[in-house]
Amino acid sequence: MTQTAHPILAAIRFDTNGLVPAIAQQHDSGEVLMMAWMNAEAVLETIATRRVCYYSRSRAGLWRKGETSGQTQRLVDLRVDCDGDTLLLLVEQDGVACHTGRRNCFFLAERDGVLVEIAAPLVAPETLYGHKHG
Amino acid sequence: MTQTAHPILAAIRFDTNGLVPAIAQQHDSGEVLMMAWMNAEAVLETIATRRVCYYSRSRAGLWRKGETSGQTQRLVDLRVDCDGDTLLLLVEQDGVACHTGRRNCFFLAERDGVLVEIAAPLVAPETLYGHKHG
Repeated sequence: MTQTAHPILAAIRFDTNGLVPAIAQQHDSGEVLMMAWMNAEAVLETIATRRVCYYSRSRAGLWRKGETSGQTQRLVDLRVDCDGDTLLLLVEQDGVACHTGRRNCFFLAERDGVLVEIAAPLVAPETLYGHKHG
Repeated sequence: MTQTAHPILAAIRFDTNGLVPAIAQQHDSGEVLMMAWMNAEAVLETIATRRVCYYSRSRAGLWRKGETSGQTQRLVDLRVDCDGDTLLLLVEQDGVACHTGRRNCFFLAERDGVLVEIAAPLVAPETLYGHKHG
């Protein structure tokens, strides 16, 4: 079976760059952890291995979540939205999802027109990556 | 104050089309309802009115969620992620979020390599829009 003939890929409307946004949500708590992008290869690998693999736009290659930090995501369920242009990944997050060492990436909240930090890092980024990460 | 000087907008990295993806999550249950896009104007209007306004790429204009269907989203909290390129909106969803009449848009789930519907419409789309909606 060719990639494009795969029924999951056929249902996804990849953008002009061949990418689709994927929201990662902790399957039991409902916490939205992060949003990243997938190409067709990342979707197929994720379904096959049940370990979440994104596409890194900055590195222009597959990004197996946790390959450097150890903070992997096990796929519990993969959902496609009504228009086929967004994925929702229900995952079991090992450790922290955010490269800043926070559990999730959405730690800046609007308060009276400005952003404030509402969560502190649980792990130092240096511990996750062995060096400072952008 | 000009739009670009607004501290919230300054923290957001809009894409080359001037858009940023926005995830809507029901604030109390944690249900991920939908993902849509915002431009700077939609972000400012949403913060000012506390009623969620997106940017419709197909209609190329502001999309005040619920203006046709009555299924509005009241903003409870707006979050910006670590990279500034995704928003998370905690909302109070009035009725159903999906134009198909389902509570959320992520009703297609991967089961053994194919997609199956895991939720039925709660409302007929014709009731929401007075006509068939794509």
